[in-house]
Amino acid sequence: MLDGLDPAALGADLHAGMRELYPLWRSITGDGLRTSLRLLQRRAPIELHEVPSGTRVFDWVVPREWNVRSARLLGPGGELTLDASRLNLHLLNYSVPFRGKVYLDELQEHLYSLPDAPELVPYRTSYYREAWGFCLSHAQRTRLPPGEYEVEIDTTLTDGSLTYGELVLPGAEEHEVLVSTHCCHPSLANDNCAGMVMCAELAHILAGMRHRYTYRFLFVPGTIGAITWLALNEGTAGRIVHGLVAACVGDAGPLTYKRSRRGDAEIDRAAVLVLQRSGAPHQVRPFTPYGYDERQYNSPGFDLPVGSLTRTPYGEYPEYHTSGDDPSLVIPEKLVDTLRRYLEVFEVLEGNSVYRNLQPKCEPQLGKRGLYGPVGGQSHAATGQMAMLWVLNQSDGTRSLLDIAERSGVPFPDLARAARALQNAGLLRDERSVPGGSV
Amino acid sequence: MLDGLDPAALGADLHAGMRELYPLWRSITGDGLRTSLRLLQRRAPIELHEVPSGTRVFDWVVPREWNVRSARLLGPGGELTLDASRLNLHLLNYSVPFRGKVYLDELQEHLYSLPDAPELVPYRTSYYREAWGFCLSHAQRTRLPPGEYEVEIDTTLTDGSLTYGELVLPGAEEHEVLVSTHCCHPSLANDNCAGMVMCAELAHILAGMRHRYTYRFLFVPGTIGAITWLALNEGTAGRIVHGLVAACVGDAGPLTYKRSRRGDAEIDRAAVLVLQRSGAPHQVRPFTPYGYDERQYNSPGFDLPVGSLTRTPYGEYPEYHTSGDDPSLVIPEKLVDTLRRYLEVFEVLEGNSVYRNLQPKCEPQLGKRGLYGPVGGQSHAATGQMAMLWVLNQSDGTRSLLDIAERSGVPFPDLARAARALQNAGLLRDERSVPGGSV
Amino acid sequence: MLDGLDPAALGADLHAGMRELYPLWRSITGDGLRTSLRLLQRRAPIELHEVPSGTRVFDWVVPREWNVRSARLLGPGGELTLDASRLNLHLLNYSVPFRGKVYLDELQEHLYSLPDAPELVPYRTSYYREAWGFCLSHAQRTRLPPGEYEVEIDTTLTDGSLTYGELVLPGAEEHEVLVSTHCCHPSLANDNCAGMVMCAELAHILAGMRHRYTYRFLFVPGTIGAITWLALNEGTAGRIVHGLVAACVGDAGPLTYKRSRRGDAEIDRAAVLVLQRSGAPHQVRPFTPYGYDERQYNSPGFDLPVGSLTRTPYGEYPEYHTSGDDPSLVIPEKLVDTLRRYLEVFEVLEGNSVYRNLQPKCEPQLGKRGLYGPVGGQSHAATGQMAMLWVLNQSDGTRSLLDIAERSGVPFPDLARAARALQNAGLLRDERSVPGGSV
Repeated sequence: MLDGLDPAALGADLHAGMRELYPLWRSITGDGLRTSLRLLQRRAPIELHEVPSGTRVFDWVVPREWNVRSARLLGPGGELTLDASRLNLHLLNYSVPFRGKVYLDELQEHLYSLPDAPELVPYRTSYYREAWGFCLSHAQRTRLPPGEYEVEIDTTLTDGSLTYGELVLPGAEEHEVLVSTHCCHPSLANDNCAGMVMCAELAHILAGMRHRYTYRFLFVPGTIGAITWLALNEGTAGRIVHGLVAACVGDAGPLTYKRSRRGDAEIDRAAVLVLQRSGAPHQVRPFTPYGYDERQYNSPGFDLPVGSLTRTPYGEYPEYHTSGDDPSLVIPEKLVDTLRRYLEVFEVLEGNSVYRNLQPKCEPQLGKRGLYGPVGGQSHAATGQMAMLWVLNQSDGTRSLLDIAERSGVPFPDLARAARALQNAGLLRDERSVPGGSV
Repeated sequence: MLDGLDPAALGADLHAGMRELYPLWRSITGDGLRTSLRLLQRRAPIELHEVPSGTRVFDWVVPREWNVRSARLLGPGGELTLDASRLNLHLLNYSVPFRGKVYLDELQEHLYSLPDAPELVPYRTSYYREAWGFCLSHAQRTRLPPGEYEVEIDTTLTDGSLTYGELVLPGAEEHEVLVSTHCCHPSLANDNCAGMVMCAELAHILAGMRHRYTYRFLFVPGTIGAITWLALNEGTAGRIVHGLVAACVGDAGPLTYKRSRRGDAEIDRAAVLVLQRSGAPHQVRPFTPYGYDERQYNSPGFDLPVGSLTRTPYGEYPEYHTSGDDPSLVIPEKLVDTLRRYLEVFEVLEGNSVYRNLQPKCEPQLGKRGLYGPVGGQSHAATGQMAMLWVLNQSDGTRSLLDIAERSGVPFPDLARAARALQNAGLLRDERSVPGGSV
Repeated sequence: MLDGLDPAALGADLHAGMRELYPLWRSITGDGLRTSLRLLQRRAPIELHEVPSGTRVFDWVVPREWNVRSARLLGPGGELTLDASRLNLHLLNYSVPFRGKVYLDELQEHLYSLPDAPELVPYRTSYYREAWGFCLSHAQRTRLPPGEYEVEIDTTLTDGSLTYGELVLPGAEEHEVLVSTHCCHPSLANDNCAGMVMCAELAHILAGMRHRYTYRFLFVPGTIGAITWLALNEGTAGRIVHGLVAACVGDAGPLTYKRSRRGDAEIDRAAVLVLQRSGAPHQVRPFTPYGYDERQYNSPGFDLPVGSLTRTPYGEYPEYHTSGDDPSLVIPEKLVDTLRRYLEVFEVLEGNSVYRNLQPKCEPQLGKRGLYGPVGGQSHAATGQMAMLWVLNQSDGTRSLLDIAERSGVPFPDLARAARALQNAGLLRDERSVPGGSV
């Protein structure tokens, strides 16, 4: 699928897109979020949805909209101590507006730092309890002189709406593949500017291809956004038959697949197959009800088969949720590598039919159809011949091509090619009678 | 459950109880057995049952009752060679009465010793074939001078009864947990004076607690006692849903769980979970139709889910069934450790409900209920929060807390605590509507 | 079963039989094939079947019959370059007749050699495309002088028939055990003169025994022969409940079992049990739709439980399908070892009944029936007693002796012996009420 693309150019392009998103003021609501989604519209026609504050979404309520004009902390001598316009992580996300003077002792209760990583500024939020605060490096915090500080937090927290982006690519079937990514983090590059731009690019690529499944891309604020979408789209959710949550897609770590709650859903098996066949180091993890929005999609009332394909997973790299997660952490080649694996997973899902061998008694004579070499006696069949023999032997109407790939060790694309050749020779029938083609 | 107890004091107390049992004349019938059970009544109100000799119990018959007044062997010069009042293992258990003179050659056919462990006196029995004999160390045997020996075995073998002890602790449910231990071995400390006293103490502790299950403790002569109880209590046996056979509970070896015939019964999974989470070395063994009375409980006509939790198992320590199994082999701390694991297994059984998440669509908002920290952005949830997320995610009415513990790796007590907190918050319902509480 | 035989004498005899077959002109049809089968008739009354050329067999057609009078290649100076009467591999199998002069350049298109194994002559065939050719060592090929060569291939390719051998040994049951071996290879000793002679000897041994199953031995030309038999015997094929494909049975490599398509059929489990209990190095391989005629028996329209028990498998020894596979590659003791394992597999299949314990509640009292030692207290039961306890414990009418062997680790023959003793004591009933005895 990437055959026509230049990996180096694509990597540079994705990285540039990620850097463009990086400085914006994102949160679970607000204009920074809207602007970010509009930037992504240059890659793919993402539609923006607005859900009013106060809307009940299951056990939750859409919060008031949060916007930031500026946020500064001035020291006892009037010196500029912190300025969120330089690094938006400095402001506790969802801080209520506050302007006033506080002594250092009281200020300390509003400061967040990391004693174990004294040079990094942490990312902290207070969505559901009204608070204000600043995040800073522990090194800077320990150097703060005593005295009276001036706090200038010019934010608004008002009735407005929660914004999310959605893009649907209709396929030959109504059954859907969900790709969901969170878009609420401020200046964190790998988590998740990289994921946002990669998902938009995936949508762009798929839009140019025929596909069997309908693909739905969601760009949602973490937790509340996914919950909001599910609450407002319960019927649609029932059409989702495979799904992936994308995040942390550009760091140097190995690809990591976290299984869905079901554990052995088709998406799980497809992703594991792709990683195993990649030949590259990778990890496969069991499901846990923690991490990104797979938490919501896999809640027992939905139990959607949604896994998560990341590089270094949630919380497991030292720069995670700190100022260290800056654009230098994201590597262009890794972005392309992750994108390629997503496409390979889609390729398996698309091609995973159940076939029936129409000449099931003994092997058909492949030679007379030009599908088998004429000279016998060699001990090893060519790859394409082995793929045909596997497809013929296993295709009794109960086993999918993915089953056959797992059992045989033959690469999925070879099996798919063999199945097409055998179909063309009239030896095989697609039991699912899929009208569409492949990705 | 042991929170209120002093392990050191409890260990000393159990050890003293074991030493008190040690010298008594026990067998599968007789007064030594009765006296032993009456000693245990000081810990728990064990009821003694008497089953007359000649009673048919399935394929077996309750044997005549055996009692011993004395048993001595005098040498050619009239010297006292063996005296069973010093070590009751010296008398072949169930020896018929015999008084007479025999030359050494003939005597040899009535002697039992261990050439491979020449300092130890073996334990041997002849329940079902009339015989008399002595057991002695091989060292002594090889030094026996030739000549005529005087045998004085003053035993009785008469119609009487087989005695067993039983204690039932009614719970909220009729379903029963069986704890069975054999009580027929004479001076063998680990096998099984230790088991007898530990089981009596377990009954004492459980008697002071509310519990969901009914607990049935059996103190039975090995094989014939278990068969007798099963034959006379077939209806009751059908109420046993979990069971453990206790023996060898005080030696220095690691805890060892032997699975039931079913292999993956709830008792098997609970015991394995407890041992795995203990952090201590342990072994898990598959079922075999050999060992202690699990042989009878797991016979195919009953197939009760009864495993066996011991320290070094049946036959696997060098002092096994010899005079070397004396009180010094039993370590007070190990007695307490074994008892603690039994209680932990009961804790899992008691708490192992199936729950239903009453807000199954997406996660409920734990924060507004005070169940979740207010500041976001940290990458790791606290243990209690992870336990709640697991319980919520998995509780779709089909999975038990034990299922969740196995899948999540979260300690069972944390999950039980989380389930209670979520029940109190109205987010969870116990699908088995257990009226009782926990141990 | 081999108790009455002298392994050394048997090995020598099998090896001599193999050497006798070695030089004959075999192919998938023709007189060399007929002569080979008639030689085997000296061991067992194999019946020869002739299927006319042109017969449609599923997707295939029985080819014209091929016979060879001579085949020579003369060099530019008239020197004898290749003579197939010295090594029949020199002639491309199924070469059409050709007589004429060709220059070296053109000749090269008709030559087959192995650049990576320059001293060996390859075995090559052209059954389904009309061609002529020679096989020779690459060393010789590189030394061929330029000039005009004279080709004298005196073969016939005419309407005739395909020959296969069949031998049926009726048992107490109609259900059949299939043993199939290919008999079409010319001068290749291990593949498969050794298999042909071993199968004939197996038939000879079984003919002298009572057995429960009907045994069917097939000596068929590879691929087309198995397809022909299946096409003409579809009804019979349905009676095959276990099967093995035999080939490469005499080389020095370890025994290798390749599972059937089902993967865990009774034949698979029996073969794996025998290999595991043999104590010798061995391999167990998953099914693949490549190799010998298990390809046809395991095609999805038949899906017969047919595995393959070989020594070094198909294509995995360096001499495979070359002149290096000569009689020196076959070792008499290995021939006997392989034959012994086949008989052990049959022993498991024959003895694998499902029994029912007629005293299922608690253990029966084995002692009073003389089946258990009278003196108690020893910690380990004798092997025979353990076998009886396992059979009694597991025989609830749902588990076979093979199930019990797998679970217990007790050798199958011990279990079979215990089952007979328990049957004789009236404690066990054979649920399959098999009239026949054991091999």
